[in-house]
Amino acid sequence: MSQNWFEVVAECRETRARAGLLHTPHGTIPTPVFMPVGTQATVKGLTQRDLDQDLGVTILLANTYHLYLRPGHELIRQMGGLHRFMSWPHAILTDSGGFQVFSLSSLRKITEQGVVFQSHLNGDAHTFTPESTVDVQLAYGSDILMVLDECPEFPVSHEYARESMHRTVRWANRATKYYNDRISRPEKSPHAPPVQPGAVQALFPIVQGSTFPDLRRECAAALVDLDAPGYAIGGLSVGEPRPLSMQMVEATEDLLPRHKPRYAMGVGMPAELPEYVARGVDMMDCVLPSRNARNGYLFTSGGRLIIKHARYRDDPRPVDEKCQCYTCSSYSRAYLRHLFQAGEMLYSVLATRHNLRRYLDIMREIRQAILSDTFPEYLRCVRAACADAG
Amino acid sequence: MSQNWFEVVAECRETRARAGLLHTPHGTIPTPVFMPVGTQATVKGLTQRDLDQDLGVTILLANTYHLYLRPGHELIRQMGGLHRFMSWPHAILTDSGGFQVFSLSSLRKITEQGVVFQSHLNGDAHTFTPESTVDVQLAYGSDILMVLDECPEFPVSHEYARESMHRTVRWANRATKYYNDRISRPEKSPHAPPVQPGAVQALFPIVQGSTFPDLRRECAAALVDLDAPGYAIGGLSVGEPRPLSMQMVEATEDLLPRHKPRYAMGVGMPAELPEYVARGVDMMDCVLPSRNARNGYLFTSGGRLIIKHARYRDDPRPVDEKCQCYTCSSYSRAYLRHLFQAGEMLYSVLATRHNLRRYLDIMREIRQAILSDTFPEYLRCVRAACADAG
Repeated sequence: MSQNWFEVVAECRETRARAGLLHTPHGTIPTPVFMPVGTQATVKGLTQRDLDQDLGVTILLANTYHLYLRPGHELIRQMGGLHRFMSWPHAILTDSGGFQVFSLSSLRKITEQGVVFQSHLNGDAHTFTPESTVDVQLAYGSDILMVLDECPEFPVSHEYARESMHRTVRWANRATKYYNDRISRPEKSPHAPPVQPGAVQALFPIVQGSTFPDLRRECAAALVDLDAPGYAIGGLSVGEPRPLSMQMVEATEDLLPRHKPRYAMGVGMPAELPEYVARGVDMMDCVLPSRNARNGYLFTSGGRLIIKHARYRDDPRPVDEKCQCYTCSSYSRAYLRHLFQAGEMLYSVLATRHNLRRYLDIMREIRQAILSDTFPEYLRCVRAACADAG
Repeated sequence: MSQNWFEVVAECRETRARAGLLHTPHGTIPTPVFMPVGTQATVKGLTQRDLDQDLGVTILLANTYHLYLRPGHELIRQMGGLHRFMSWPHAILTDSGGFQVFSLSSLRKITEQGVVFQSHLNGDAHTFTPESTVDVQLAYGSDILMVLDECPEFPVSHEYARESMHRTVRWANRATKYYNDRISRPEKSPHAPPVQPGAVQALFPIVQGSTFPDLRRECAAALVDLDAPGYAIGGLSVGEPRPLSMQMVEATEDLLPRHKPRYAMGVGMPAELPEYVARGVDMMDCVLPSRNARNGYLFTSGGRLIIKHARYRDDPRPVDEKCQCYTCSSYSRAYLRHLFQAGEMLYSVLATRHNLRRYLDIMREIRQAILSDTFPEYLRCVRAACADAG
């Protein structure tokens, strides 16, 4: 791993927020960054050109579990890796598969070796180990890979959380060792290559420990010993109260090296994005902007808008008058409501484009505030607006 | 109606094909033209920008029946007409609503006055008359309107077809009279205005007569007396054998004025497009390119491609190597097959874009062949290719 793969270019004077640059084999990513979710090698309803040219997305997340089951990592490797398969020129982060195994699979059995699970598609039995999920993600050619972790549900006993966390740490050790061995001898086992010669992929371990600060800290301390290029904070957004999610991030912030990127997995609502950044988070992903879009919930600079409401029936205004996205610059609330009521695909296409633009705009605002040394004021404004709205 | 709203710019030396220019309130349309179907004020899965900038579409079809039921013509009028409501800058043709009343509505009763039918959405009773459907389409601000017709199913007795055709002719007379009265006194009943001052809308009567050439000719002769700006040929693609559809177009070609556009409604397959043009048709519409796309059937320069077939699992080629569309220039068959198998929306978005491009490319080839006096050779090539394939 190159010493300067992550550069911190500005730090907040009050909070733990920072702006950075993450240099991946598929381009440089300004941080803090929000990563749209492309579960099955597609962000639902958007073309790769929409994501790239219209929205300015620099990194996508794809799901190891889903793509492993269909179309399969060997096919993706054979097609030249995930970037080429889905025609995406920028960076891709893949998750570990752990979260989906624990949330989607009906039957699963955890052993020290790994996890045996049934496909949610056809019931076939599969096994994920720390080593096999590295193989799968190397076949994808992901720019950033995650180690296999166990993601316990909420709530869980301290005893089980501790046992599970220790196993996750042991798995992280095995995955890191296996990964370093594989990338040092690529000729022995073919995998999809990164695009830029010399640029290297990065494997992130995941901090677990449920909602117990002591376990979170013990986990982080153990993972820091791996000298990984970056760290993910997992097990959030699994049903715990939101303040608790923030506390879990705070619990380990001082332990995770400041010169490495931190990724809070699966968060959050628009108003939470600056809160995570204020707690030292550089990367986030969430299905909310795309899933909520499809369900009729639109995020605007003035708050949430539920498009099916009758008041929008004849509303000629765009979803958000302050938004520059294609949807807002071309279509009215009345038209979007009509498409939603009629069950038309174009509704999801336009709504997803808007909601993602809202998230990306927020991240650009946050980064600009950090760079111009006004992030504390920005955060206070967001909090005041939330207090007003609430 | 301006004398030169339709200009014939070239005629085929062997067939009845011709190339023209149709001047509408929302731009000039090169003919022969294929009109993508935007049933509910959207071509399923494509944005208006895709249609305009990517595909070069100059005229869309929208369905009077669907938009009348939802969101309603009064709302559309209030929003400034259909063009503004759906943000479509080019021309719109709306059908009469007759076909949908007869194909979608579970209960309907035809009288001399019009047709009473139940909404397929909620069972509410509605009435369409020749006059009311003019009102509805004027509220939309359509560039080209259709008169209410009865579209008998296939097969039907000569007796019923004759009775129905006579009623359709009487309705065309009533609709034309009512329309002329309304557009001469727009101040009395507000409707969405066309964009260009001086440009006028056009109301087309529809030739019916089922599959009986004598009835078709009797109908055409009676409608020609109305001196309409153009003529539609309806009642095709309702289950009759394809050669019979062609014969019905041939039956009236010499009766319909050569200096006016002819529109064959609801046709056809790719290889049929030049056949209709050879029979003097200038305008066509069909759900096939978009509906078949969604169902996995792709039209290529080499014939039909069924994307779910296992042979495309690892096929790195585009759908059609000769196609310049966004889908073919960016994505492989393997990726499209994956999206189709995974039920992803992006499959429909990309497949529809390709299939429509194929139809529009065929129409551009046809027009170019007519302009360069090579249409007979073009037609022979298409027929030979079909014979080879078939």
